[in-house]
Amino acid sequence: MNSEFLAFYTKEIRKRLPLSDFSHVYDYALFPPGKLFRPMLLLSLCEDLQLPLNKESFSIASALEIHHTYTLLHDDLPCMDDDDYRRGKLSTHKKFGQWQALLAGDGLLNLSYEFLSLLPSRKASLALKLFSRYLGPRGLIQGQAYDLEEGHELKSHFNLKIHELKTARLIQVATLAPVYILSSVSPYKLKAFSRLGLSLGLVFQLFDDLSELIQTNSSTEFEKNLFILHPKEAFDALKFQLDYVQKFILKNNCLKTSSLIQTYLKKIERIITEERDRFEKNLTPFLIEPVFSLLNNINKG
Amino acid sequence: MNSEFLAFYTKEIRKRLPLSDFSHVYDYALFPPGKLFRPMLLLSLCEDLQLPLNKESFSIASALEIHHTYTLLHDDLPCMDDDDYRRGKLSTHKKFGQWQALLAGDGLLNLSYEFLSLLPSRKASLALKLFSRYLGPRGLIQGQAYDLEEGHELKSHFNLKIHELKTARLIQVATLAPVYILSSVSPYKLKAFSRLGLSLGLVFQLFDDLSELIQTNSSTEFEKNLFILHPKEAFDALKFQLDYVQKFILKNNCLKTSSLIQTYLKKIERIITEERDRFEKNLTPFLIEPVFSLLNNINKG
Repeated sequence: MNSEFLAFYTKEIRKRLPLSDFSHVYDYALFPPGKLFRPMLLLSLCEDLQLPLNKESFSIASALEIHHTYTLLHDDLPCMDDDDYRRGKLSTHKKFGQWQALLAGDGLLNLSYEFLSLLPSRKASLALKLFSRYLGPRGLIQGQAYDLEEGHELKSHFNLKIHELKTARLIQVATLAPVYILSSVSPYKLKAFSRLGLSLGLVFQLFDDLSELIQTNSSTEFEKNLFILHPKEAFDALKFQLDYVQKFILKNNCLKTSSLIQTYLKKIERIITEERDRFEKNLTPFLIEPVFSLLNNINKG
Repeated sequence: MNSEFLAFYTKEIRKRLPLSDFSHVYDYALFPPGKLFRPMLLLSLCEDLQLPLNKESFSIASALEIHHTYTLLHDDLPCMDDDDYRRGKLSTHKKFGQWQALLAGDGLLNLSYEFLSLLPSRKASLALKLFSRYLGPRGLIQGQAYDLEEGHELKSHFNLKIHELKTARLIQVATLAPVYILSSVSPYKLKAFSRLGLSLGLVFQLFDDLSELIQTNSSTEFEKNLFILHPKEAFDALKFQLDYVQKFILKNNCLKTSSLIQTYLKKIERIITEERDRFEKNLTPFLIEPVFSLLNNINKG
């Protein structure tokens, strides 16, 4: 499924890029793609729900990945997170310049909506609603704004709100699209799929923060950042969210989705366990326990 | 019509902004609004075509103005055109900071698409096609990229290509929306309305450049910039485009639209004639002639 989607994704994007020097900037930002977690999640849920993997589901999955890529381009800019590297290479603004990364981000944001226009009218209209509400001023963008506002990083409960908006909204589009755009289900079911995306988003963000922390070089920084993240509370939240994901998957018999999630969590697990020593040195005992109980939960998943 | 639209525009935007400190940034960027030329053009064409001024046409007109506003926020950033002032006040990044202006721009871009989702399915889907294609990577964004690439500013024919993409595409969305989204007309008619937007876009951009040149303080700069713009060729192109607009309006009996265009052109005319002396001092005779023949054309319009 991965290679079939990737072929569609690559071909349809190339068709829609300008015939100019500037297309190199898009190309650099989009290819080779990252983990493709969001489109793969969307497509495995389609499979679990017996919805076809076709132009329609591929178009929404592409739109989602393109949208995600634009956020990375803008987030990496000096006035935002100021990151020089992304996906193992120079970030787009480091490679080409700031206005190039800014404009390519704007281009990708529009391109993401262009992919939704490949759907038949009714589905296009639903997709437009879902994307613009979840990823617009009251969704993803507000999460980025909270993230950059000063003073917020110290408030753990607020951090969760940031992750909910900044990270989980994109994942929720992946979990909602199959039921909201491609099939009609009850509002109750919609709520459950939205909740799945929220939980998954928070789980991935927190694990991601954790694995990033572990990879920090200085021990002082590691401790300082752990303090900032308030890991006790964060890990309690994480456990709670992971429980929901597991219950959802069992209840809805989502085998493809379950296997996809396992694959990604295993990767994070590997990073964490490889660094177990540093963890035990730096985390107070009451913090070590929830981390490894979470990892045990993954293994049972 | 202006005040009815403005009431809709203000109310519906406020409904869709986040309940957070960040909403001040959107508010600052959007209000008070500019000339509203694009939405007014769209709505006067609706009137001329006997299409209702209702939630549908107002939603598209709002989406267009919001989209235009996002481009201003991003264009003004230091890595782009680096403008400190916009609409008689500090530009958004000067007032709040760069990430605030960048994010608010991204938010407005998404919000623009959110307004299209207020349309019934079929129209929403057509609007999605029109906006994403005209304003995306092969449209407006490519115009901005050409504009910022070095070395291009000296080529007049290339400048027209920039204006066509960067300025005219937004105006073309205004002229196409009434016929492409809100009614069904022949492909031949679509082409004429698209052409109208192109001509209007070029006319406004060139007059705008001219009035900006006139307001330049130093005479040397004035002459230098005139040289860069290659006004002889530019004015020839301008005359050609203005002729098309006049023919279109006569042929299609677009009285409302004609009166709207006259209003805007008169304003530009006033600036130019007030500075007639400086013009005659700085423009070589063969350049003065086309400028004033154009102004005569407006008066006859």
